[in-house]
Amino acid sequence: MFLGQASIKYKEDVFIQGYGSVVGQKEGEGPLGSLFDEVVTDPNFGGENWEDAESKLQEKIANTAIKNSGLETKDIRYIFAGDLLGQLIATSFGLKNLNIPLFGLYGACSTMGESISLGSMCISGGYAEHVLCMTSSHFASAEKSFRFPLGYGTQRKFSATWTVTGGGGVVLGKAGGTARITGITTGKIVDYGCKDKENMGACMAPAAADTIYTHLQDFETSPEEYDKIITGDLGYIGQTILLDLLDEKGYRIEKNHMDCGLEIFDSEAQDTHAGASGCGCSASVLCSLILGNIGNKTWKKVLFVPTGALFSPVSSNEGQSIPGIAHAVVIEAV
Amino acid sequence: MFLGQASIKYKEDVFIQGYGSVVGQKEGEGPLGSLFDEVVTDPNFGGENWEDAESKLQEKIANTAIKNSGLETKDIRYIFAGDLLGQLIATSFGLKNLNIPLFGLYGACSTMGESISLGSMCISGGYAEHVLCMTSSHFASAEKSFRFPLGYGTQRKFSATWTVTGGGGVVLGKAGGTARITGITTGKIVDYGCKDKENMGACMAPAAADTIYTHLQDFETSPEEYDKIITGDLGYIGQTILLDLLDEKGYRIEKNHMDCGLEIFDSEAQDTHAGASGCGCSASVLCSLILGNIGNKTWKKVLFVPTGALFSPVSSNEGQSIPGIAHAVVIEAV
Repeated sequence: MFLGQASIKYKEDVFIQGYGSVVGQKEGEGPLGSLFDEVVTDPNFGGENWEDAESKLQEKIANTAIKNSGLETKDIRYIFAGDLLGQLIATSFGLKNLNIPLFGLYGACSTMGESISLGSMCISGGYAEHVLCMTSSHFASAEKSFRFPLGYGTQRKFSATWTVTGGGGVVLGKAGGTARITGITTGKIVDYGCKDKENMGACMAPAAADTIYTHLQDFETSPEEYDKIITGDLGYIGQTILLDLLDEKGYRIEKNHMDCGLEIFDSEAQDTHAGASGCGCSASVLCSLILGNIGNKTWKKVLFVPTGALFSPVSSNEGQSIPGIAHAVVIEAV
Repeated sequence: MFLGQASIKYKEDVFIQGYGSVVGQKEGEGPLGSLFDEVVTDPNFGGENWEDAESKLQEKIANTAIKNSGLETKDIRYIFAGDLLGQLIATSFGLKNLNIPLFGLYGACSTMGESISLGSMCISGGYAEHVLCMTSSHFASAEKSFRFPLGYGTQRKFSATWTVTGGGGVVLGKAGGTARITGITTGKIVDYGCKDKENMGACMAPAAADTIYTHLQDFETSPEEYDKIITGDLGYIGQTILLDLLDEKGYRIEKNHMDCGLEIFDSEAQDTHAGASGCGCSASVLCSLILGNIGNKTWKKVLFVPTGALFSPVSSNEGQSIPGIAHAVVIEAV
């Protein structure tokens, strides 16, 4: 059942029984706008501050994913969720009214990969009928937490990415739906010493390369096996580094590589510089474009690899680097 | 295999193949001092700042637990770990040199319960031979992150608890060792509206009561089934509330209740007020007193219930309450 250094191939597939995505206005105005379940134009999501806004967003995502699965809240046995904020504010406050047992996760922007990995283990192991795996990010709560108060109007470097306001959730179970999880590869912390918090793509690319390489080795397969190999939020700079690193290791993936951070915005028209980022980037693109294309069989098999920069303002101010981590999930059409 | 609302009874037991604890000087001077694997008198653990100190502590815990299990680092397939700091600084930097696939967790001080829950699911499901479940806390990194800089010399309320500098780790597998995990009950977020960050016991007690109540209902059992029902870090005030809340629901547990936060320090002599707290409190007491007493069969069966306050300085300053969560693990002698 387990393969190589860090992978699992499930004996029994795990099915994505339903999914949902909710995003903010800017994401709704981007190229994928029509694919999201809901576009909310109020940046506060009806909340009182940015953290409250993201909490309300998480609650909306959970309810949308559960509803789209044809289930009720009480049918969900566990939630696997997290967000970028210290002590998971959005998850802690956003999901408490659901009254569902919760495993709180922190994988930075790789959280959607981590949550699906643990959720699919849980289903395949027979520990639940239905679990909800989800995450979110919010541009303003992230800027406040990790960079500068919005009011400063700080200039952004061209290497910087734009945190997605939005997120997605999938309900996993033993049957049904239009997509299935057939395997996972779990990432380890990879640190090439990058310290530039306005170049997260460079910080995360080595972790993405490591996980994709490990995956291909563990499954004894090649990039061509996948219609798409989809990273989370590397952006242009991270993508270049990823392709170079894998090329050095003997794998050329440029033909089928896609990065969620390069899909959700029109970088020029929407002025998002190197691309998009945040937990909600890969989560919302998964729960719109990716699962849509798998559902209509445009893609039969993808490797979904959300990428996280383990960036803390505290450790960064103390001179530490920004390590990365990436978790891969094999998603196939039913 | 799954019971009631939120519990799992494993078909095949999961074994604690080895464990290790590392603590600071104050903990070493407390009543359990002689039971820890290592007492480190340097509060910096050889690091450059408090976050670095806690990272070094986590690395020490991991290496101690692995060594005590008779294994090598390469034998561990996954780590399930987290800490209290924003973006899991101690875990991200402390464990990166181990080069082991990591699931980063955030459950506040319930993290040891969360990590053992997920780790035991992983082993029981057949997804790994050995996993490491661990967590830590550090008095100074926690005070800095959640309360006031130490240099202020702020007076502490009598309801406040003292964050443990230390932690513990267990290696789980399919056989061996002197203790086994036979079931788990996963907590949900419980919020009674408490906002006092100097009274975490009161914030967490409702969650502990909910998880223990759910556990007893799900397993259709009674408190007398357990030699000890052990909460993480409620302290004196939280303990009183817990006993009252369970009494109201028809369960009297005072005869066999124990709180790790009331064991690790001599509250009067060491001036720790309401008791001890922190992820490392329940983790280090588990990996010394509790597993020691199970190993020598003083206790045959305990319910280990680490308790977490989902307290973020940001949300708290915005006027939010401090919700709690608690995860229960059934540990039995072999």
